[in-house]
Parts: sequence; C-alpha cells; structure tokens
Amino acid sequence: ARSYNITLLPGDGIGPEVVAVAKDVLSLAGALEGVELRFQEKLVGGSAFDATGVPLPDETLDAAKGSDAVLLGAIGGYKWDNNEKHLKPETGLLQLRAGLGVFANLRPAAVLPQLVDASTLKKEVAEGVDIMVVRELTGGIYFGKPRGFGTNDKGEDIGFNTEVYSASEIDRIARVAFEVARKRRGKLCSVDKANVLEASMLWRKRVTALASEFPDIELSHMYVDNAAMQLVRNPKQFDTIVTNNIFGDILSDEASMITGSIGMLPSASVGESGPGLFEPIHGSAPDIAGQDKANPLATILSAAMLLRYGLGEENAAKRIEAAVTETLNHGFRTGDIYSPGTTLVGCKQMGEEVLKTV
Amino acid sequence: ARSYNITLLPGDGIGPEVVAVAKDVLSLAGALEGVELRFQEKLVGGSAFDATGVPLPDETLDAAKGSDAVLLGAIGGYKWDNNEKHLKPETGLLQLRAGLGVFANLRPAAVLPQLVDASTLKKEVAEGVDIMVVRELTGGIYFGKPRGFGTNDKGEDIGFNTEVYSASEIDRIARVAFEVARKRRGKLCSVDKANVLEASMLWRKRVTALASEFPDIELSHMYVDNAAMQLVRNPKQFDTIVTNNIFGDILSDEASMITGSIGMLPSASVGESGPGLFEPIHGSAPDIAGQDKANPLATILSAAMLLRYGLGEENAAKRIEAAVTETLNHGFRTGDIYSPGTTLVGCKQMGEEVLKTV
Ligand SMILES: CC(C)[C@H](C(=O)O)[C@@H](O)C(=O)O
Ligand SMILES: CC(C)[C@H](C(=O)O)[C@@H](O)C(=O)O
Repeated sequence: ARSYNITLLPGDGIGPEVVAVAKDVLSLAGALEGVELRFQEKLVGGSAFDATGVPLPDETLDAAKGSDAVLLGAIGGYKWDNNEKHLKPETGLLQLRAGLGVFANLRPAAVLPQLVDASTLKKEVAEGVDIMVVRELTGGIYFGKPRGFGTNDKGEDIGFNTEVYSASEIDRIARVAFEVARKRRGKLCSVDKANVLEASMLWRKRVTALASEFPDIELSHMYVDNAAMQLVRNPKQFDTIVTNNIFGDILSDEASMITGSIGMLPSASVGESGPGLFEPIHGSAPDIAGQDKANPLATILSAAMLLRYGLGEENAAKRIEAAVTETLNHGFRTGDIYSPGTTLVGCKQMGEEVLKTV
Repeated sequence: ARSYNITLLPGDGIGPEVVAVAKDVLSLAGALEGVELRFQEKLVGGSAFDATGVPLPDETLDAAKGSDAVLLGAIGGYKWDNNEKHLKPETGLLQLRAGLGVFANLRPAAVLPQLVDASTLKKEVAEGVDIMVVRELTGGIYFGKPRGFGTNDKGEDIGFNTEVYSASEIDRIARVAFEVARKRRGKLCSVDKANVLEASMLWRKRVTALASEFPDIELSHMYVDNAAMQLVRNPKQFDTIVTNNIFGDILSDEASMITGSIGMLPSASVGESGPGLFEPIHGSAPDIAGQDKANPLATILSAAMLLRYGLGEENAAKRIEAAVTETLNHGFRTGDIYSPGTTLVGCKQMGEEVLKTV
C-alpha cells in the first residue's frame, strides 16, 4: 500500500475542531483507496506561541518539511493581536509558507448549485461562477526588504515595506497559472497595477512573454482596481486569475465572498518540490471556537486538494469531493450556510455525515 | 458677486463630452446663486502627450495651481498604453495630484433609490448603502522611493516599489476622515494590513492615537482582505472608510461597483490649502468616446462637490444635486443605467435635462 506522512497543524480558534473532522475523512478516503496515511500533530500560531513562546517552533517546521503534505486549520485570535510583529500568529504562518517554499496558492471560488442563494449577489450573477485565483505566496510586499520602522529627513516616524518581484519569481507563478488554466477553461487573467507600479510592469512583461509557450491559453491583463469591480459586476467573466501576493490576498477573499459560502472554500499552496500546505481560506473564528458550530467542509475540501495536488491521489480526492456534494444534497448544513428547509448540524455531525458517504 | 477661476481639464476619451456638459451646469447653478465662474481649459493625459509630448505640461499645472478649483474629465486610453512610464497619461494624473498636494480623496458610493436595481447585489443587500471612502492620495506605494528596475544578487531583473507612510501623512488623512465621519453617521473604519505590513502597523497606531480627539466617532479597524469581503457580504455596515492609496484605489472601486452605477459617482480630492481636484471616478471609456453615449452625471456631481468642498458654495452644490435627483425622477437615463420603462438619452440631452431643473 502507498503510505504517506501528513503533518496536521490545527492552529487556533476553530482550527482544532475542523482539522479533527478532516483527519477522519482523510483517513477513511485513503483507506478505501488503498492509501495509508500517518499523522503527526504539531503546534502553530497563537497556540504555539502560548506553549513555546514563538508562533512557528523549529520542531513544527522540521516536521512539516519532513512530511509528504501539511494540513492546517486556522491561526490567529484577538488574544494575540497585540503581540509584537515577530510573535504574531500570522508571522508563524508566513514563516511556514516561506519555509516550505510554497509560492503558488490556489484558491478556488465556485458557487455550488446547492448554495447559490447564500451569495449576496443576484442569482443570475452568481450562478455558475467558477474562478480559480492563483496567488503568488512567498514574495512581494509580504516578504520584500527593506522593511521596518525608521525616521524620515524631517525626523518623523515612518513605516515602510518593499514590493519586489524578480523575473524568476514571476515566471514560476505564471507557469503554474497557465498550467492551471489549461486544465480549466483555458482563460487566464493576470491582474496588476502596471499603470503605476514598476513591480507590476515587470510582472506584466514577463507574463506576456511566457504566453508564447501557452498558445492555447487566452491571456488578458487587468488593473487590480478594475478587477475588484469586475468581480462584483460580472464574476462569470473570469476563469483563472493570476496575481501577486497582496492583490491575491484581497481579490481571493473578495471572490470567495461572492460565492456566499466561505466556510466551504479550500486552498492549496504548492512549491517546486517538497510538501504542499493545504488550508481552508476562512479564519480562526474565535467567537465560535469550541462550540461545535464551525463548518468543517472547507477543511475537508482542503484535504481533498491535499490528496490531489499534494500526493497525486486523485481517486481519494474525488471520493471526498463527491461525499461533500452528497452530504449537501442530503440537506445537511452548518449555521453559516443554513437556510430554511435544510437540516442544521454542528461541526462533528457534519463530519459524520460526510464519513457516511465517503 | 463672488467670482472664482475654474480650471477645466477635459482629458481623454469621453472626458471632453462630460466636462462640456458639467461646465454648463456649473455656470448656471453658480449664476442662480450669485456666483460668477470663469473657466480656462487646459490639456492633461494622453491628449496633452499628443499635443506637447508630456502628459502634464507645466502650463497645465501652473494654471491649475493658480485657480480656485479644478474639474477633470478622465485620462488614458489604449493608444497610450505602451508609453514609457513617465509619459503615460496616468503619470500626468499622479503628477497633478502631487503638484496640487491633494492628499485626501473623498469617494462616495451610495445606492440611489432610483437605481437600486442596477446593482448586481440583491436588493435587500444593496438598498440604503451609503459609504464614503477617504483614500490617501499623495503617498504610499504610488509615490514611495526607492522604486524602479534593477537586478538582484542572482543577476535577475527585478521591479520594485516602496510602500511608506510617515506619521504626519497618516495623521492628516485620518483627521480628514474623522471630520467626514462626524458629518455623516459617526462611524469610521480604518482599513490596513497591520498583521503583515509595518507601514500598516504605523497607520493603525496613529489612527488609534488620534481617536481620543474624536470621542464622538466610533472607530474600528479592519484588514484589507476582510474589508474586500465585507463590502460584498454586507456593505451597509460601513459609513466612512479611511485607507491608504493602493487599498483605497481597490476598495473604492469595489464599493462603487456595489452601487451598480459607476457612471454616477463623483470624487473630490483636497489638500491642506490650495485648489481641490474634482473628477468622476469612471475612466475615459475610449470605446464610446465621441458617440454622445457617456453618462455626464458623475462629472456633474463632481462639479457639485467642487462647489461644496472646493469653493464653499453649498447652495449651488445642493441645486445641482437636487437637479440630478429630479432628472432621474423624470426617468431620464443614459445607456449605462438604462432599464425598461425609463427614457434613454445621450450625454448632451442628459445635460439639457439637468439644466432645465437646475
Ligand atoms: C493571516 C494572513 C497573514 C493571511 C495573508 O494575508 O496571507 C491570510 O489573510 C490569508 O490570506 O491566508
Ligand atoms: C488612473 C490611475 C492612476 C488612478 C489611480 O490608480 O489612482 C485611478 O485608478 C484612480 O483611482 O483614480
């Protein structure tokens, strides 16, 4: 039997609840496809800070690097909001992404037919939306140097960051995006601010140059402000979007809210080699943590992405996705996606319903 | 009689059409309130580049600086998209903003009862939305140095920009935003990415410190990715938003699309002293330029903002706003906001209808 080591990073807030459920689903789907999954659980984020004094202990990063794939719950919470920068839960997550070299963040935002009413957009606008945002994840203003605090020539305090991209950083994310578009509907929209920013001008130049290697892909370019509008005006115009780290942060969240069900949305972060990082796009939701109210489907679907993109176990991935669809068809809903006429369940029961159909 | 000098900058694409209409409305509203307006027209953007070789001729900036207020149409077009950076129409606009020192960009996004169906959001979500985005306009990554192109230590091409804010830059825009919120519903949401960026950490610190001067204002903070989501999920939660230049670029466009009628939305950019710059938020729409199809209402409403914020002529401003409302109530619509049962008119006729009711 094929066997893999999975690092589980439950993290903070609702993270432990949703990861526990996803782990069971992952095990079962694997077992049914002859795949043995071995799990080790490590600390990250605020809980790691509380236990060890840092948001990403070396032990966690080493374990993650040494495994075949990493499944993360969520990090952060009010409790740690005033931590110094290098001790914030978010910093732990950024160190993990950088440490694993997972430069390509794939964020699907699809409106499920069962949940079209959950969108705040009109039905005819939301129906059929199926977008994949490919976000650069280990470069740009998140990591650029110099950064920090200082004083300007008037002696005033300043805070500064550097948005920077190199040709190879752009090429490798663009390549991933072209490949992703090829497996989808063949349309790629590159989003930048090339009318103002030099970093974006280089971005556009490199993406444009790469297009000749992908003659079957229809490439377009859009300014980020316009993209933010077009996602609201007519999201169906988009197939695959590729963009930098900060624009991707903003636009992928906007796109996911357009689906109306961010409790449903998974993400995959992959590098050139080494283990990928898989996580739901929702946050740690400290207000509902520990109450068995969280929607585990985003983490379960992240586990499916882990099987597909992280381990190449397509059959087990499909099994999970089909089980989620069936569970929704059976009418089970957590609070965030509940509507009259459906059956309200908690995090655990939702997990059990999915397990039944896996 | 009070008299003022207005610089008109028609710019490119539909700019000349909408500015011509707004000029007539401005003149009449002024005259009826005993205000004499004298106009001078200057070149900016692509048309300035074509005529003089630069997108902001000295003559234009000098005229603008020497006047009491500036009304701009729109700039840009495919024709100049491949201009070198310093010759792009957009660069002319940025030089104009910097030259006039208009650091505070006020962008209202309100859903008009007459046009609620134009929004792609469900009626119950869109109805009653009334947001003012206060965007920092002369700092941040748009202007930060160092910026440019270079090579990294591997000899690769890089493109880079600097996001930087000083304490005083943050304080002055925050002050404007607190004042604006005070004249509205008393709620201010400051948007940043303080969980990642040092520039945002300083932003949040200064805004928070200033709050003690405005105890009557309810201040909150939100990360930019979350703000992009919340604008889609529940835009009514927002009253006044204050944010940096690039986040403001993105979020104000998103907010304006939520209203469904960006052809209706004006903006005002003001500094500590000196003339303000007033412009519609829509672009130059080269595809419909010269066809008498453009919606002039955004520019007409920008003229109203010019009277209010630029000249302190509240009565004349109200006259224009009332005339626009009445014209909409009479059922006149340009193509972008047309719906069955209303009367389709061109740019000029829309102007004439507004003139009749001024
Ligand atoms: C928590 C935060 C650092 C993170 C980001 O900005 O990348 C989050 O918003 C995300 O998108 O995964
Ligand atoms: C044209 C462009 C430079 C400009 C900006 O990014 O500021 C525009 O998008 C705007 O918002 O006024």
